[in-house]
Parts: sequence; C-alpha cells; structure tokens
Amino acid sequence: MRIALDVMGGDHAPQSNVEGALQAIKEDPLLTVVLVGNEQAIRAHLPAEIPAGIEIRGTTEVIEAEDEPVKAVRRKKDASLVVAVNLAKEQQVETVISAGNTGALMTAGLLIAGRMPGIERPALVALIPTLSGKITLALDVGANMDAKPVHLLQYAVMGSLYAEKVLGFEQARVGLLNVGTEAAKGNELSKATFPLLSKANVNFIGNVEARDLMQGACDVLVCDGFVGNVLLKAAEGVATSIFSRLKKELTSGLLNKMAALILKPSLYRFKNTLDYAEYGGAPLLGLRYPIFKAHGSSDARAIKNAILAAARFVKQDVNSYIQQELNKEIYRESE
Amino acid sequence: MRIALDVMGGDHAPQSNVEGALQAIKEDPLLTVVLVGNEQAIRAHLPAEIPAGIEIRGTTEVIEAEDEPVKAVRRKKDASLVVAVNLAKEQQVETVISAGNTGALMTAGLLIAGRMPGIERPALVALIPTLSGKITLALDVGANMDAKPVHLLQYAVMGSLYAEKVLGFEQARVGLLNVGTEAAKGNELSKATFPLLSKANVNFIGNVEARDLMQGACDVLVCDGFVGNVLLKAAEGVATSIFSRLKKELTSGLLNKMAALILKPSLYRFKNTLDYAEYGGAPLLGLRYPIFKAHGSSDARAIKNAILAAARFVKQDVNSYIQQELNKEIYRESE
Repeated sequence: MRIALDVMGGDHAPQSNVEGALQAIKEDPLLTVVLVGNEQAIRAHLPAEIPAGIEIRGTTEVIEAEDEPVKAVRRKKDASLVVAVNLAKEQQVETVISAGNTGALMTAGLLIAGRMPGIERPALVALIPTLSGKITLALDVGANMDAKPVHLLQYAVMGSLYAEKVLGFEQARVGLLNVGTEAAKGNELSKATFPLLSKANVNFIGNVEARDLMQGACDVLVCDGFVGNVLLKAAEGVATSIFSRLKKELTSGLLNKMAALILKPSLYRFKNTLDYAEYGGAPLLGLRYPIFKAHGSSDARAIKNAILAAARFVKQDVNSYIQQELNKEIYRESE
Repeated sequence: MRIALDVMGGDHAPQSNVEGALQAIKEDPLLTVVLVGNEQAIRAHLPAEIPAGIEIRGTTEVIEAEDEPVKAVRRKKDASLVVAVNLAKEQQVETVISAGNTGALMTAGLLIAGRMPGIERPALVALIPTLSGKITLALDVGANMDAKPVHLLQYAVMGSLYAEKVLGFEQARVGLLNVGTEAAKGNELSKATFPLLSKANVNFIGNVEARDLMQGACDVLVCDGFVGNVLLKAAEGVATSIFSRLKKELTSGLLNKMAALILKPSLYRFKNTLDYAEYGGAPLLGLRYPIFKAHGSSDARAIKNAILAAARFVKQDVNSYIQQELNKEIYRESE
C-alpha cells in the first residue's frame, strides 16, 4: 500500500515526520510512504541509502499555519500538502496524512479529492482522550459550520464505522451532543436530529452532555462543526491552562520541586492517559480518498500512529462500508 | 432594599442559604432579605430572635433539580422559587436569588417576571474564572437555544453594562465566540453578528476562540445559548476530571501523600483562583425584575456574594441603562 505524507506540516516538521515514516515502514514492511516536501530537508533526516518503503516527492512550496486556506490551496500548487492530496487523486497513493494547516487540508480534501457520492458534507474527526484510557471520537469539529440534521445522521454512520473498523470498538455507542439528556432538549438542529439517529443503523444511546465526555459517556459524539470546534478548543484550553499553572506551582521553591519529583511518575502516568500521540491522526470522513489530519504538535510516534491508522482505514475499506450503509433505504426516508 | 432568596434551592440548602443571608445583612445593614421556603427548616438555622433585615415567607412546595421546568413552574404554585419570583412581580422585593433548578428559574423569569420592553430574548450569564484571577462573563449559556444576530447584539449591550456597573470593569472588552479570530470565520450566525457588534456602542474586540478564554481573552463573551451551554459544561467537565484524577494520584501511597502535603498551600492557592463562590451568582439579563442564579453548589459565602451582586444591580439601576442604550437608533437600524 502506498501512502503520501506531507513532510512539511506540523510543529516538528520535517524531522519528526520523516522519523515517523521510518518507524511506520519498520512496523509494517508492506507499506510504501511517499515523503512529500523539500527534498534536501527530507534527505537530511534519512540514511544515505534510502530504505525500501520510502520514496521522495520533492516540492518547492509550503502552506504555513497562518495562510488563508482557500487562497493557499489555489495558489500554492507545488505546496507539499497540495501535492500530497493530488497524488491520491492521481491514484499514485491510497491515502494522505498531514500535520499541517487544518483548514488547508480540508479545502484540499474538498476541492481536489472531492466528496464520496451521497455524502453531503465531509466531517473532521477529533479524538478526545477520556479518563478511562479509551478515546471518544467527536465529529464534526470544524469541516462544516452550518449543519443540517441529515449531515449529523451521516456523521453518526461514518463515525461508527470508523470507530469499529479502524479503532476496534464493538457496537460503538453514538451520542448526540446536547444541553441535557432528555430527548426534547436542545436547539432546532438537535431536536430534529434525535429521531433520525433513533431510526439509524447505529448504536444510538441518546443525548450526551459535554461535562460527561471525559468520563467516557459515549464512543462517537456527533455535533455540528461550529459547536464541535468550540467544544474541542474549550477542552484543550482548560486542560492546557490547568497543567501550565500546575507546573508553575510545582516548580516554585525548593520544597515544591522536591515534592514534584516524588509525584513525577504519577503525574507522568496521568499525562499519558491524555496522550494524543497514542492515537496519531484523525480522518476527514466522507471524501473519495481518506485524508488524515495529524495533530500539529505531532512527534515521530504520533506520525507513525497516524500512518498506521490510515493504512488500517484503507485495508478495512471503510469507505465501501460507509457507501453501502448510506445507500440503504432508511437514510433516504429520513431525509 | 428588599431581596427575595429561594432558601430551598441548591445542594447545601437550606442551611448555606440562610447563613449566606445572615452574612449579607451584616455586610449591608440596609438590606432586607426575605427567606422564601419551608418555615420550619428556615427557623432551624436562624437565631431564636430573628434579626432585623430578615423576613420569612413560608412555602409548602419545592422544585427539585430533576423537575421538568415548565411543568414545575405551572403546577407548583407554592414552590419557593415560584413564590420568590412572584414577590418581585408584586413589587414586594426588587430582585430574586435562587440556587435551584436553572430551567425552572428561567421559566419563572419569562412567565412571571416577563421580558423588558424591547428585549427579544433574556440571556443567562455565566462567570468563567480565568488564570489572571479576573472573570469573564459569558452569555447566553442556556436561556435561548436558537439565537438570531440581533439577540447576540442585545447580549453584548446587556453583558457590557452588567460588567461595568456591577462588577466594576472599565470599558469591558466584548468578544464574539468563534472558531477563529478572522472576521469572516464561523457559522451564519457569527458571520451576521460580527458587523452588528462592530457598529454597536460596546468595546468590541472581535472574535474570540474558546481556547483563549482562560487566558482572559475578553471580559464579555457573547454566543448563542446552545454553544454557550456546551462551552461551559465542557470547561467544567475537563476541570473536574483533571482535579479528581489529580487528587487520586496525590493520595496513592505514603510518599505521594507526603508530597501532596508540601504542595497543599500552592494547590489551594490555585484552586482559589478558579473559585466560583467569590463571584456568587450570575444574572438572567433582560427581565423586568433582575433575577440571579447562584451556583447549585453554593456555600454560604457564594450566597452572600450573590445577594450583594443583586443588590448592586438594583442600586446601579442597570435595567434603566440597558433600556436607554437599546432604545438608541443604531440598534434599530442594525435589525
């Protein structure tokens, strides 16, 4: 299987990206990873003799984090991210991974790869770590700002299939993000979506409140992209703020530093529970070719795990399952 | 000034509520607090001779946390919460405070107190603690699920005036909750609201992302009630989860317990930064009579602070400022 990796995207690019690719081909010798980016920069992190399973596709441009997505994708034709998605379109690779500009990746996904037939809106998945050590998939977290009930229905189907086929969940529990657990709660969108999910071929467990997410209230959370994005950033903001303040308190004065030393293994174990790198990347679901977004702060292990998740997505042929399921009569009726 | 306090609402009712009232009249001897609830239960927490500044209004019913709001308010006519709001309507008190069922309080506010002329939708305020030690007001966090741009505009005016007149902010910085900071970002609602806020007579600083809130990115955050509620509960959920897990790690084994003992003052200081009780209650803005929601877990100090905030609201005549401001031509044009 051939996979394109945008080597220029992410905070630790290109080094972590190249290292992640090397780790991935070691774990799965049947993979070929096409490293897309500045050739010189890539070679600097590769052994003199390029290993089997690694190819280089040199590019001259880079989409930066602060670039305006649509403009960047249209104008920077030789950007690593754009070239990588084009490789999928030209069927030179089967899936694409980038830790770069999320907006640009979604734009390239829509404009270059295009939607699967029957999918109204692609959805960006986020993997939310919970205290149980398992993760919750949330979608959409920003691909589609003004969702309709049928979009959320499709997210539920796509999210469930991804959770089950790629991440190994059994009968993934699907929750609808809402402000209360009663069926009649919420805004117009959630009230109209609830009955659709009740009839769908997913394990729908009802409304889920944001405060119960970290306790593992559901496996797949569906919501519109605006709310999902706010949810994700609120959670990240609170967690980051608490940990940074904690670090400050733990290092203020000699006694505190000593105490912190004692607690280090415990805190480290806790931090690991909430480790994004473990799960690598999250897919943009609903496109013709699977595209994975790795976290901006991905290290080599996160990149490796993103590559392996993308490979499982392709092997399991998740897109065919999605297509098959959404072709069923029940989904057309509910529209 | 006369204030009604629902003595039966909240996790620590009636004791903390009665104690909070006693603390409040000590700090402001010009107040009279009418304690509304089960008379026997109230008297159990009062001295034999009832102090000047305390009155009792006996009631026989209680709205529970799990009661369906609209039904409860309509059927339980003698519930403490309903009677308290009726006292305001009958002009026996100038403002009402409850730590009880939020939905029921909002319903009673709408059905009994009613909206101020010109206010399309009341908004529930939440006070979000930030790392700087200041708070951010967020509104709406659940009064109105499907907001229009003009509602958010009114929230901005009401929130600014509350922040400035009651909480002492100068030129309160108003932010629009969004998924990015650029003006063109967001969903239909936020895109249509941005230009209205730019023209309004508030200190609008642009879009604000959820991840920057705890850093104090703005003083007043406006959003629709669905998103605001999700934001609040996500933040609460993450903070609660992290602290509970932290507590577990800090008490697992003798060494950890010793280390925790050393760190106690630091952690306590940190916890205090994020202390809701300091700010007491948050108002439901846009009603004819100011109604305050105190946190469900309010202790006596939180109740006292809610009473004092409500008193300031009345003294400062915030409702007149809101009325005056929203009567201006610029707001009608922008509709």
